[in-house]
Amino acid sequence: MKTYGVIMAGGGGTRFWPLSRKARPKQFLNLSGKDTMVMDTANRLSKIAGTEDIFVVTSESHRDMTVELTKGTLLANHILGEPAARNTAACIGYAAMEIIKKYEDGIMVIVPSDHFIKDEAEFTNVMNRAVKIAEVTDRLVTIGIKPTFPCTGYGYIKNIESEDERYREVLEFVEKPNLETAEDYLISGEYAWNSGMFVWKASTILKYFERLLPDIYAYLVKIGNAMGTESEAAVIRETYPIIPKISIDYGIMERADGVLMLEGDFGWNDVGSFDALEDVYGSDENGNVNMANAHVIDTKDCILYGTNGSKLIAALGVEDLIIAQTDDVVLVCDKNRAQDVKLFVEQMAGTDSERYL
Amino acid sequence: MKTYGVIMAGGGGTRFWPLSRKARPKQFLNLSGKDTMVMDTANRLSKIAGTEDIFVVTSESHRDMTVELTKGTLLANHILGEPAARNTAACIGYAAMEIIKKYEDGIMVIVPSDHFIKDEAEFTNVMNRAVKIAEVTDRLVTIGIKPTFPCTGYGYIKNIESEDERYREVLEFVEKPNLETAEDYLISGEYAWNSGMFVWKASTILKYFERLLPDIYAYLVKIGNAMGTESEAAVIRETYPIIPKISIDYGIMERADGVLMLEGDFGWNDVGSFDALEDVYGSDENGNVNMANAHVIDTKDCILYGTNGSKLIAALGVEDLIIAQTDDVVLVCDKNRAQDVKLFVEQMAGTDSERYL
Repeated sequence: MKTYGVIMAGGGGTRFWPLSRKARPKQFLNLSGKDTMVMDTANRLSKIAGTEDIFVVTSESHRDMTVELTKGTLLANHILGEPAARNTAACIGYAAMEIIKKYEDGIMVIVPSDHFIKDEAEFTNVMNRAVKIAEVTDRLVTIGIKPTFPCTGYGYIKNIESEDERYREVLEFVEKPNLETAEDYLISGEYAWNSGMFVWKASTILKYFERLLPDIYAYLVKIGNAMGTESEAAVIRETYPIIPKISIDYGIMERADGVLMLEGDFGWNDVGSFDALEDVYGSDENGNVNMANAHVIDTKDCILYGTNGSKLIAALGVEDLIIAQTDDVVLVCDKNRAQDVKLFVEQMAGTDSERYL
Repeated sequence: MKTYGVIMAGGGGTRFWPLSRKARPKQFLNLSGKDTMVMDTANRLSKIAGTEDIFVVTSESHRDMTVELTKGTLLANHILGEPAARNTAACIGYAAMEIIKKYEDGIMVIVPSDHFIKDEAEFTNVMNRAVKIAEVTDRLVTIGIKPTFPCTGYGYIKNIESEDERYREVLEFVEKPNLETAEDYLISGEYAWNSGMFVWKASTILKYFERLLPDIYAYLVKIGNAMGTESEAAVIRETYPIIPKISIDYGIMERADGVLMLEGDFGWNDVGSFDALEDVYGSDENGNVNMANAHVIDTKDCILYGTNGSKLIAALGVEDLIIAQTDDVVLVCDKNRAQDVKLFVEQMAGTDSERYL
């Protein structure tokens, strides 16, 4: 059975403002120093699926840019545009329907477009194992990341060894814990970070939609029936925006029985906010992550990021700051408040400062 | 006797980098929100001397810009260019010689070009009194600022009441004190801040040069003899750069007897570094001085300055910072390290980053 890559690229990346902008969210930025995150992701998936079998699901408004950025690697008609953001259940259902209707069935390897993975060989290894398991078992497979610290920013997957040593059984998906609980999880060894990466057959996940999310399934069928017909674009444009907004985790994963998990230990980071850049790039002897044209004096544990090498960041006597400079905005933020950068986007929406978003 | 204003505009203003640049030091910036500091100063002096009698002494390299900035107010031939910076004794001696040789004698009201004065009426009042005293007594007069806090950043003038209640007698000029000493000074009521503002006859100060700084006096005479002749420019160009570098305070004020002092209590600030902007502008309810297009969240006691209103400063969860943005540099500095901003200028001189200076 053929393997398809599905890259979910619909996010806003507001915790990376002002680098991440409405017109060019985080997944379209080069934060790794190699390529845009979406292209890094496509290149990573190309060891698991052929590049001609990789899809990207993104906002309709970013579709043209995505086609442009992936040109020469991915097929333009595999860049699927969502007329509205309806969360991950809709996104995955749409891709599953596309595969079923236009390419018969296949294994979907579904990954977010904006994660960083240090050990790509191990990622390939784990994913290829997941593909085989999904193919033979017909079950839902997810990748749980082996926790390295008591992180309160991720959801966790409680899991247990199974009789088949090729995979573990998922007992429960749990919400982001407080620090104490996260420490317990870490010590117990029974919990993995929920990475949002999934492997299953298109036909399998559509069966789960039919059973657990029948209203969404009905919309997907409507869209699926229009696929390949003249009315495809119009039906998607009308139907997609009214699909209920729910994540695949809430809608299916937490409610499905018999979900399998493979443990991933490949230097994963979801690059959720600026402080993640420390993990991506490493820091210098003063604890600074310097991705800018910067001159620093008596400055420690800061993250410096500049999008324009001709502009200088000068820091003196400061600690634990994020300083990010674009051509029109400079952000100065306490590193412990990295999660709250999205507040700027929330507060400036609809104001005179909207042009900075 | 005629009164002449002399504005000393030769400083580099390196503690205001990156606003203050080699090509446009602090005194040529509009930091007050009204006009450039040099024009603010000229306008302030115009209540004491006619605008046609005000001189500016500045670097030769800034002379054309100064002529341009003061056009319509000051006379172009009253903008004197120094071929090299030789400290305040040379600057004041040059202006005194210019007045003696070209305009007979006169009272010189000498002020730095980069100070801020809140109560201009009181400034005018004090200066006009100083002019009269200099005229009738033929002595050196300086303005001591009534201290408002135990400042360790200024030199002090120890002074005492005289029999003539129009002025006080200077007992001693003292160096910048430590905090304990500054507190003693404040409590004693016998000390004033040394403002670097002086009032005296051109003929009087030249007599002091002759007696206390005979080597400098010899150079001044050489320059004076060339004034009004064809060789004036050439003699200045050759002679000025070899005048010994010494301040008027070290060279004359601390060594002269019978110096008089008038107390100034007119909201003076020498705008020595970024933290002075708090005094110039006042702060908002969160202690922030906001002279930028800024969006701040949970930010306290910061100084925000932007030279370009189309560029945004976004600050989150930070305290006691100076954030200054120009088109090519952003400075982020602990407010308690404001004095050290000049380190950037020192460290980047002669490097690839010289273009930012």
